[in-house]
Amino acid sequence: MRSDILADRINIGIFGKMNVGKSTVMNLLTAQQTSIVDPTPGTTTDIKQAILEIHDFGPVKIFDTAGLDEFTKLGEKKKAKAIQALKESDLILLAIDPIELLKTNDFSAENEITSLARTYGKQIFIIYNIFSRKMKSSADEYAKKCNEKLYHTANLHFIVLDAKAKEAGKCLIEFIKNNFVKIDKKTDLLPFLKQNNFVVMNIPVDEETPEGRLLRPQNAVLDYLLRRFVPFAGFRMDLTKARSKIKAISSTEKKKYLDFLKKLNAHKNAQLIITDSQAIDIVAKWTPKNIPVTTFSIIMINYQSNGNLQKLIEGTKTMDSLKENDSILVAEACNHDRKCNDIGTVQIPNRLKQKLRIKNLNFEFNFGREFPSEHELKKYKLIVHCGGCMVDSQKVNARINDLMNVKRPVTNYGLLLSYLEGKKTLNRVLKPWGLSIK
Amino acid sequence: MRSDILADRINIGIFGKMNVGKSTVMNLLTAQQTSIVDPTPGTTTDIKQAILEIHDFGPVKIFDTAGLDEFTKLGEKKKAKAIQALKESDLILLAIDPIELLKTNDFSAENEITSLARTYGKQIFIIYNIFSRKMKSSADEYAKKCNEKLYHTANLHFIVLDAKAKEAGKCLIEFIKNNFVKIDKKTDLLPFLKQNNFVVMNIPVDEETPEGRLLRPQNAVLDYLLRRFVPFAGFRMDLTKARSKIKAISSTEKKKYLDFLKKLNAHKNAQLIITDSQAIDIVAKWTPKNIPVTTFSIIMINYQSNGNLQKLIEGTKTMDSLKENDSILVAEACNHDRKCNDIGTVQIPNRLKQKLRIKNLNFEFNFGREFPSEHELKKYKLIVHCGGCMVDSQKVNARINDLMNVKRPVTNYGLLLSYLEGKKTLNRVLKPWGLSIK
Repeated sequence: MRSDILADRINIGIFGKMNVGKSTVMNLLTAQQTSIVDPTPGTTTDIKQAILEIHDFGPVKIFDTAGLDEFTKLGEKKKAKAIQALKESDLILLAIDPIELLKTNDFSAENEITSLARTYGKQIFIIYNIFSRKMKSSADEYAKKCNEKLYHTANLHFIVLDAKAKEAGKCLIEFIKNNFVKIDKKTDLLPFLKQNNFVVMNIPVDEETPEGRLLRPQNAVLDYLLRRFVPFAGFRMDLTKARSKIKAISSTEKKKYLDFLKKLNAHKNAQLIITDSQAIDIVAKWTPKNIPVTTFSIIMINYQSNGNLQKLIEGTKTMDSLKENDSILVAEACNHDRKCNDIGTVQIPNRLKQKLRIKNLNFEFNFGREFPSEHELKKYKLIVHCGGCMVDSQKVNARINDLMNVKRPVTNYGLLLSYLEGKKTLNRVLKPWGLSIK
Repeated sequence: MRSDILADRINIGIFGKMNVGKSTVMNLLTAQQTSIVDPTPGTTTDIKQAILEIHDFGPVKIFDTAGLDEFTKLGEKKKAKAIQALKESDLILLAIDPIELLKTNDFSAENEITSLARTYGKQIFIIYNIFSRKMKSSADEYAKKCNEKLYHTANLHFIVLDAKAKEAGKCLIEFIKNNFVKIDKKTDLLPFLKQNNFVVMNIPVDEETPEGRLLRPQNAVLDYLLRRFVPFAGFRMDLTKARSKIKAISSTEKKKYLDFLKKLNAHKNAQLIITDSQAIDIVAKWTPKNIPVTTFSIIMINYQSNGNLQKLIEGTKTMDSLKENDSILVAEACNHDRKCNDIGTVQIPNRLKQKLRIKNLNFEFNFGREFPSEHELKKYKLIVHCGGCMVDSQKVNARINDLMNVKRPVTNYGLLLSYLEGKKTLNRVLKPWGLSIK
């Protein structure tokens, strides 16, 4: 099982009213696991989630959401979280108690889910849970009647299930396996790479770098290179020295970097230099023109957005039109200890204001797993997002889709930091991807 | 906080009879945490454990053991596990209800712990938990009386505590901070390294390699190099090709490796080549004589054993004297999916028998976090241990100490695989460490 966050998991969201057996469905799925990553369904912001591997199906993340009928009672917030889970799901399982539902004849909550699933292009399967009632002979009749009242059910897959029955788990898994269409992500981490020649990495270490291991983007790149037999070399630039105003210090650091490249015979042997985005100011300046350069952050956002780097380049372009008092959202998908010269809260705001010669830009920050609602996003003229290396690509894509829906431009750290150095630098880091900005 | 397994955590073991407030002590400590790694005390083989960072003290792992008085009732197994926790602890907290203890006047269980702590050279502090009884004025008297009956208490630190009182947590932490002597581990991952010149890594990937990231030893080495500004280069040798009996295939792979070294100008620029132990047969043969070579496994076992590589070399030497029908224990500190040509269960047994020309060697296996008792270890003529990269150094050292106590030789995967290639190869991988075998 892929142990990394970049694993291509299938996200399954379980939806339905209270007491239709949502938790039972969750348990049926988790009981089929072959490899446990996080066996205890945990509660994250009102959504229980479990990560596991289902035999013969693959790694999955399962969300068990609040009851649909709790939405109205508990307000918009709980609903927003459930919808968030829906956006991050590849497969929606809508659990229904057909007898109860036909009794009330109120399909509005269920139809909200089928509509949302259609809006966001999700596969949706209906689970008619008949419990152990004595009506199994006509269970399909009930299901058929329900199907008629549900929207968008023309090609809907459904299963009639006694979730408490002995073989229910097996049946459910078989049902999912037989009907779920696996869409190969096919996003290549470094699609333009050739097998020969070195890839050179510049990996500065700062106060916020965790000790004892490399960061995920570096781990992902190294794993990618090794699996393709691409040799690599690495270097840590001392950014304090490189940016020193004392000429002797900065030129010694420059010589060190160029000597390193020379030893590698880099102008002949290096097919790509990948740098931490924070060093792009120096790396772009010092690296010989003929060696292609890109950044870890750009690699990550392209991978995590399923190859939608172009959308973020469009967002980057809009920076030129920012005006006094515009609001900008800086978003990072994870929380970490912030040190005094933190990139998101200090460097980006300061440098952007300086670059654009704008005195007042209203920076707001969103750190962690929850993202503003589409409505809240409308106030921002630009969203600057991190590479998203600590969350799954479903979450990154859900965020990008939200932003596209409300027509808000989004860029990321790597693109922004390159843009700050001028369009020439931005185009240099985009060139390996066959992309550019005018 | 160091997020890696190689973090230098302080292990704290909580011991004591039932109902003396062991869990309360655990809760007092976990309530003081600043950074949560695993906040829920989990039960591992009857030992609850929590990993967290205590403000102004550092990262700790806390074991909450079974009640001392349960030992007799529940048998040797539970006791063995508690003693295992003691061996892996840096600090023993012995909780005592002084009033109850003086009433029974049976100090045998407590004295067993103080004796074991002394035997294994552990720091031990006594916590006299007086609960909220109305006797606080003379609490110190009770403690003093108990101290007199406990062995090895001459320089013992103790605290009288009402564990349920409001400031109890603060008091306890202050007490630990003021009295615990932090011993700097000071084991350097690569003590012989110079800051200049490349370190070259050979990282083969096999079926058992997890996807999406490098293994811990490689992560640890790369982090170490970056923090010291040591440049590095990496290569993945195709071992199937390298070992091919078809000359054209193996010589193409050899040329690829030598070309890689040549591009790096390795005979001048490489100060060390680190290879996965499994490739030492090829790397030792193909690498130019003047370039020092060692293996990831040797680096790890030296680090995890606090620099006790010499002890494992002594164990390696004893392999020459193995005889027909001797028993050998192959131990790995973690469990992972085993593929058909697994190193521990297949490669090592087969190759060792072949090398020693012994038909019958009785191989037994121990995988996971529990280790045989000293008594059980006596049956083995040799123990072959993995690098221990997935557990903490306290556990690795506890195991090595157990083996030294029963005078059983221990070697590890990296040393054994090098030994299998002959003493010349073994001495080559030991040379960077200033060590050798005759």
